[in-house]
Amino acid sequence: MLRFEPRTFARATTPDPGSMLNPYTEPLHPGLWKMLTVAMCVALVGCLQAQELRGHVSIVLLGATGDLAKKYLWQGLFQLYLDEVGKDHSFSFHGAALTAPEQGWKLMAKALESLSCPSDMAPSHCAELKDQFLRLSQYRQLKTAEDYRTLSKDIEAQVKQEDLREAGRIFYFSVPPFAYVDIARNINSSCRPGPGAWLRVVFEKPFGHDHLSAQQLATELGSFFQEEEMYRVDHYLGKQAVAQILPFRDQNRKALDGLWNRHHVERVEIIMKETVDAEGRISFYEEYGVIRDVLQNHLTEILMLVAMELPLNVSSSAAVLQHKLEAFRGLRGLNKGSAVVGQYQAYSAQARRELQKPEGFHSLTPTFAGVLVHVDSLRWEGVPFTLMSGKALDERVGYVRVLFKNQAFCIQHERHWAPEQSPCLPRQIIFHIGHGELSHPAILVSRNLFRPSLPAHSWAEVQERPGLRVLGRPLSDFYAYSPLRERDAYSILLSHIFHGRKESFITTENLLASWDFWTPLLDSLAHEVPRLYPGGADTGCLLDLELNGGHLSFSQQQPEQLVPGPGSAPKPSDFQVLRARYRESPLISAWPEELISRLASDIEASALQAVQHFGKFHLALSGGSSPIALFQQLAMGHYSFPWAHTHLWLVDERCVPLSDPDSNFQGLQAHLLQHIRLPYYNIHPMPVHLHQRLCAEEDQGAQTYAGEISALVANSSFDLVLLGMGTDGHTASLFPQSPTGLDGEQLVVLTQSPFRPHQRMSLSLPLINRAKKVAVLVMGRTKRDITMLVSRVGQEPRKWPISGVLPSSGQLVWYMDYEAFLG
Amino acid sequence: MLRFEPRTFARATTPDPGSMLNPYTEPLHPGLWKMLTVAMCVALVGCLQAQELRGHVSIVLLGATGDLAKKYLWQGLFQLYLDEVGKDHSFSFHGAALTAPEQGWKLMAKALESLSCPSDMAPSHCAELKDQFLRLSQYRQLKTAEDYRTLSKDIEAQVKQEDLREAGRIFYFSVPPFAYVDIARNINSSCRPGPGAWLRVVFEKPFGHDHLSAQQLATELGSFFQEEEMYRVDHYLGKQAVAQILPFRDQNRKALDGLWNRHHVERVEIIMKETVDAEGRISFYEEYGVIRDVLQNHLTEILMLVAMELPLNVSSSAAVLQHKLEAFRGLRGLNKGSAVVGQYQAYSAQARRELQKPEGFHSLTPTFAGVLVHVDSLRWEGVPFTLMSGKALDERVGYVRVLFKNQAFCIQHERHWAPEQSPCLPRQIIFHIGHGELSHPAILVSRNLFRPSLPAHSWAEVQERPGLRVLGRPLSDFYAYSPLRERDAYSILLSHIFHGRKESFITTENLLASWDFWTPLLDSLAHEVPRLYPGGADTGCLLDLELNGGHLSFSQQQPEQLVPGPGSAPKPSDFQVLRARYRESPLISAWPEELISRLASDIEASALQAVQHFGKFHLALSGGSSPIALFQQLAMGHYSFPWAHTHLWLVDERCVPLSDPDSNFQGLQAHLLQHIRLPYYNIHPMPVHLHQRLCAEEDQGAQTYAGEISALVANSSFDLVLLGMGTDGHTASLFPQSPTGLDGEQLVVLTQSPFRPHQRMSLSLPLINRAKKVAVLVMGRTKRDITMLVSRVGQEPRKWPISGVLPSSGQLVWYMDYEAFLG
Repeated sequence: MLRFEPRTFARATTPDPGSMLNPYTEPLHPGLWKMLTVAMCVALVGCLQAQELRGHVSIVLLGATGDLAKKYLWQGLFQLYLDEVGKDHSFSFHGAALTAPEQGWKLMAKALESLSCPSDMAPSHCAELKDQFLRLSQYRQLKTAEDYRTLSKDIEAQVKQEDLREAGRIFYFSVPPFAYVDIARNINSSCRPGPGAWLRVVFEKPFGHDHLSAQQLATELGSFFQEEEMYRVDHYLGKQAVAQILPFRDQNRKALDGLWNRHHVERVEIIMKETVDAEGRISFYEEYGVIRDVLQNHLTEILMLVAMELPLNVSSSAAVLQHKLEAFRGLRGLNKGSAVVGQYQAYSAQARRELQKPEGFHSLTPTFAGVLVHVDSLRWEGVPFTLMSGKALDERVGYVRVLFKNQAFCIQHERHWAPEQSPCLPRQIIFHIGHGELSHPAILVSRNLFRPSLPAHSWAEVQERPGLRVLGRPLSDFYAYSPLRERDAYSILLSHIFHGRKESFITTENLLASWDFWTPLLDSLAHEVPRLYPGGADTGCLLDLELNGGHLSFSQQQPEQLVPGPGSAPKPSDFQVLRARYRESPLISAWPEELISRLASDIEASALQAVQHFGKFHLALSGGSSPIALFQQLAMGHYSFPWAHTHLWLVDERCVPLSDPDSNFQGLQAHLLQHIRLPYYNIHPMPVHLHQRLCAEEDQGAQTYAGEISALVANSSFDLVLLGMGTDGHTASLFPQSPTGLDGEQLVVLTQSPFRPHQRMSLSLPLINRAKKVAVLVMGRTKRDITMLVSRVGQEPRKWPISGVLPSSGQLVWYMDYEAFLG
Repeated sequence: MLRFEPRTFARATTPDPGSMLNPYTEPLHPGLWKMLTVAMCVALVGCLQAQELRGHVSIVLLGATGDLAKKYLWQGLFQLYLDEVGKDHSFSFHGAALTAPEQGWKLMAKALESLSCPSDMAPSHCAELKDQFLRLSQYRQLKTAEDYRTLSKDIEAQVKQEDLREAGRIFYFSVPPFAYVDIARNINSSCRPGPGAWLRVVFEKPFGHDHLSAQQLATELGSFFQEEEMYRVDHYLGKQAVAQILPFRDQNRKALDGLWNRHHVERVEIIMKETVDAEGRISFYEEYGVIRDVLQNHLTEILMLVAMELPLNVSSSAAVLQHKLEAFRGLRGLNKGSAVVGQYQAYSAQARRELQKPEGFHSLTPTFAGVLVHVDSLRWEGVPFTLMSGKALDERVGYVRVLFKNQAFCIQHERHWAPEQSPCLPRQIIFHIGHGELSHPAILVSRNLFRPSLPAHSWAEVQERPGLRVLGRPLSDFYAYSPLRERDAYSILLSHIFHGRKESFITTENLLASWDFWTPLLDSLAHEVPRLYPGGADTGCLLDLELNGGHLSFSQQQPEQLVPGPGSAPKPSDFQVLRARYRESPLISAWPEELISRLASDIEASALQAVQHFGKFHLALSGGSSPIALFQQLAMGHYSFPWAHTHLWLVDERCVPLSDPDSNFQGLQAHLLQHIRLPYYNIHPMPVHLHQRLCAEEDQGAQTYAGEISALVANSSFDLVLLGMGTDGHTASLFPQSPTGLDGEQLVVLTQSPFRPHQRMSLSLPLINRAKKVAVLVMGRTKRDITMLVSRVGQEPRKWPISGVLPSSGQLVWYMDYEAFLG
């Protein structure tokens, strides 16, 4: 064990280097006396309890000479010491690294030189406390298993010698992720404290690169540590304005109760803009990009704090973590349309330089991303959450902005509007994380909303600064509060680690839920060419975003393609929709995405026309997997669809309860109905489940459905029937050789399928052929053969029921993707 | 017949009084020569047709010496003459009034003296034309039937003498409405032109005071004139910016096609603010008020121009009128919650003075109104249209503002936003009718929308005026266009009358549709005490409006009651929730709002508990009006309610189709289901409508429902049943002396109600009493007697079914508002 080396260090900090060799045996410093006095008083008060020894906490900083340690962690540990000195615990601080003792010590000492006290502390008092802190700090080389064993033994010996009780050990991993497993193994096998004392290990991101790698890392670490022992740091959770989000929501519950929901919130923006670029860090950045670097962690965590249901007790870590995890479950899945990406123009050249790439190399790594997130809860349904971050932008600023709907109309001219009263000024709550024109953390609430309550001992109203504007409004429009003392995120988090406040850290479940959410988007963007932007103010409107339905896009069209994309597979948009004829009816063929979007538009057009002429639209839909994308498209992308006037019917149904996952209706419910507002009585599931029986002849379900159709659909002629085609040529649930449904008078029939579940209910061919329009959707390579075959046969419904589809006075249109049609 | 009197008049206008005695026989003036030349050329071109005589139009201005005539109508007629001179027709102008010839002529001459030409006309040319116009103008006393006959004969004689063909006659009623019928009768019986010539009669508002009086007036006038003969003037339709709305929509169809709808329009404001008050006009104003004076006519007409579907051909009067009428059909009915009214503070004193009212007199006439209008069409569903007008406000201005939704997020700091590009600046189209800081008519389109197209011969871009702002934005944010020449509304409308452009006038159908729309609101506001406002800038935020769901309210609570309102009942907040016992069960009593909110919270608590323990919550709800507020509260205020795990059952149902407005289920759908996400199969309406029949015994609906309950609800024990209590002591649909449902084995029964619809389906008392919790909600003064009575009786369900509610092992709680409980 290498003791703290006084030679270099002592010169700068204390006149008596000799006294530092072992601080624990030296005569007690006045500050320590005070501490002991406090402990004694506590002992006297709580006197009848077992005489407990004073607790000791050892903090081991792994990577003690690295950048993060030098910049934040040592200062954070010193701050922790300042906060806790004289309270219940004594401390020892072990800086550790691979470097040999002497050299390591020198590097560490350099970091410790610059420790500073809060500005309101008297310099002499500061010097005194710094001196104490230095005595408690040592450098230690941790390389071999033996080193770890020695460390543990030294801690034990020290505790014993000082007549202390070991309270716990903190190991802070400020090392690259590749080193994690080795260190973790050593700590687990050699450095666990004895019974009754806790172990806390602290990790820094990145926690994996995607869901799989995060899962692997989590599993490995999980083999060494309990979940409650692990503290994953997202330092944004330690930033003062972020750390205050939940307390703010809690302390202002009464005012926010009615406001914090989709009825009042117009939108939420979670923003982190940087002016710096990635130069010098390209080798890291190439692998991560802005989404992994900022959005997946920092901005997502903030999103959760805004969106989660507020637990009754916000100081319960368990409740907070539980609610946060539930909020993750409410996130609507992202797809390519949820995001736009950009890259500052100089990036590729920097990458070529730093990574020694050839002249033709162009990176696809995004340095800018805007992502539209929806939270599918009753509270947030429909409210857009925009997450945005980028490098080389025009300003450095981070904030969360909750903008409330403005439904006011002010009678007076705007020159008479008063910030406290006028309902026409913007209403917003801003958690200003830092930088920007305001330059410090703050929480701002528009004066026409309410006067917020903040903890008076730590937050105070911001002084008016004439001319200063925040997000377009003068500061005077807001009740604005700032922390009385600005504190670095790491010092806050170190305190939270020490106090076991797990809600400020990322649990394994939380981490995996986040990767679960982001990985599909990252995959789908992998080959996306980012829009190039000049950077700084020159970027102009090039990156401005527009929310459109469920999608996000750049509001300006790309002016020109500045780099060629990687010449890969042709994209859907490279092809036009193909129009042709199939079985003497119109055929529309395209790539799947294009095809579905075309079909959805055609259905909407039919619907609008029908509603205009007849006041309603009768649509009969098939089940199965092909229409799911269609349902989603209709649910998300077609806001003019006249749902209130649409009746939905089923083309066929399996004889299972409606809520069975196999039920066609269940698919319709999950992918369409739950996203739209269709009146209950416009929904017509097939009555396959009557009197607790499934498709019993005597329950006359088919007849009942036929009766319902006759009663509601004029002439029993649906406006549109959507069919599929099976590889055996079946359509609806009409299978080859079916004794029912291929002809005759019956409108609705019970049939048998060769596939499970065998029993089915189906519209009959004669009923289908009464429709005004029939669309047949055929997708996927497996349909190739039957598509070929059916193209050549006549009308032989007994062999191929699909060939019997021929509306008597309506229109038939085939929608086939290229794989089904061209193979 | 009194000829134009030259003596007084000629002095001011022409050096040769003698020549004016009969202008038609005088040597032709050079201008008239030119006119004739044109007519000859036309005749030469269309030569082979029958040689047509030149058409002559006689215009009779009734009330020729009144204010309107002096201020606008003579000038408008002169303008018409200036526009039409030298074209296809000759004119004569007959000023008429009751005044005797000599005196009338003097008054009229005074009005004619001040006629002026457009500023770009040379003074000499102006004098010449004015001279001609005066020669063509005469004063005429129209009092007796004989006077009208003489007028008609004179016109005929004149036409004949001049060798002209009579083209038509215009009678402009610038007289009070009480005079209409007499004059109309005389015109109809004596002044109709001969065959082949048209008659146009022009009326000025008011066109009635409400639907009934408007209908009466319309019927009377309709007995004298054909619909196509009547031109009802709303002079706002002649204001240049208003008259341009349809042409603008037509000429910018391409840009507006995608924008002019609920997906893009955030809201529409139609505003007319005045600084003047009603002083001097109180006797009129007391009878009308601001809604009848401004909103029912001017603002409604403008609303129609904005909201109506655009006909393919906007120059077809018939198509425009037809589309406008259809737009009226789409207006959602107004109710008290649609409007707020105010009155400037000095009004009542002015009224006392002008109407000689006693000191204690307070008028309820509104001088300010804000009204929220919704148009229930696919295009406009959900878009708020705010109509607002008031007197004694802080500025004089009139405009229509179409504000588009802003779904953009701009990456750069706002200092970099450019008006042409930035999607983050407001996007709006403003039809600026007049006054305000802009001070002239204009059409403004935000530069980030599109560059509008306007008729280049009559509209030009407005010159930039530094510092000028329009509705909060600098003028430079807009493409702004103004008429090249400002024209008065009446001169435009007179031209439209002459050209038979009926789309600029109010047809009878249109008028009645408007009264149809406004009358219910006017009735419901008849006894509403308007909010008093000081007037001018002092009004502050007192009149600011807030849109909340479908309602409009003042955004500020009334700071103090400036006049005592009628009856000062205590307000809900004055009382706390009262806990007591009723029929030996807990009773919760409060004012309605508080009571509902408490009940909703209790239901949510039960739901959370049930879901936690059993995974689902079975809730049976009653219909009727009392629970509506509860449904709304549950839908809007309870975001953690576990709807996904809740099953909804009906306590009772009327035997009507589910979508019938009388159906209990329909209330549930409208007020609860459509706002929440309940899986389809968790919704259990009562099967009252089977096989196209209602509650037929043989369809076994009650048994089916009972079976469904047994199958899904453990032990048929609902987690919560919500009941009401009728004034006869009925509950659910179990009425006194019911032969079914009060006891026995049956879970669900058919019953008879003394009220329509008589047939009902209901849960039985034995089933209700199996519930884990039963809540009885009783509200309103009408329940007072039965509440008293039931508090004293024992368990006698045959007399009072509610007295049989006593859960065998569950809990019963009564929720009564103070009016039901305390009377």
